[in-house]
Amino acid sequence: MKKVKIYVTLRESILDPQGSAVQGSLHNMGYEEISDVRIGKFLEVQIEESARDIDTIVKEICDKLLTNTVIEDYRYEVEEAN
Amino acid sequence: MKKVKIYVTLRESILDPQGSAVQGSLHNMGYEEISDVRIGKFLEVQIEESARDIDTIVKEICDKLLTNTVIEDYRYEVEEAN
Repeated sequence: MKKVKIYVTLRESILDPQGSAVQGSLHNMGYEEISDVRIGKFLEVQIEESARDIDTIVKEICDKLLTNTVIEDYRYEVEEAN
Repeated sequence: MKKVKIYVTLRESILDPQGSAVQGSLHNMGYEEISDVRIGKFLEVQIEESARDIDTIVKEICDKLLTNTVIEDYRYEVEEAN
């Protein structure tokens, strides 16, 4: 069994209104040194051994369901599940 | 300037209905080998140099605003921003 960590982030060119709102709140709380906040998703997926290649599975599920590739990028790491 | 990557995950004991829904969708799409999905947040925060210690800032903003420590855990990494 493998554990895959998937990091989904907005593309650089895409505005992040949620991140901007959080940054504004942090400024209001006195954290003036925070100059940028961007918010993405972090997914932990357990995948059992099968005939299919793990990289193929991860790329397919990211492209088809987990991310919107028009506005989001993703990267992932595969680990042995304990 | 530092770039801080913050990973927010639901605690092990907390059910993740959003993750379960995604897992169900993946099964319906034919990815039977996916045995668990858990969804968290991934934040990238740029912090300018100040008199305050970077670890203190990150822990404070996580505890006060970014996470719900009753149901969520977090970990973070500090990098030099390029």
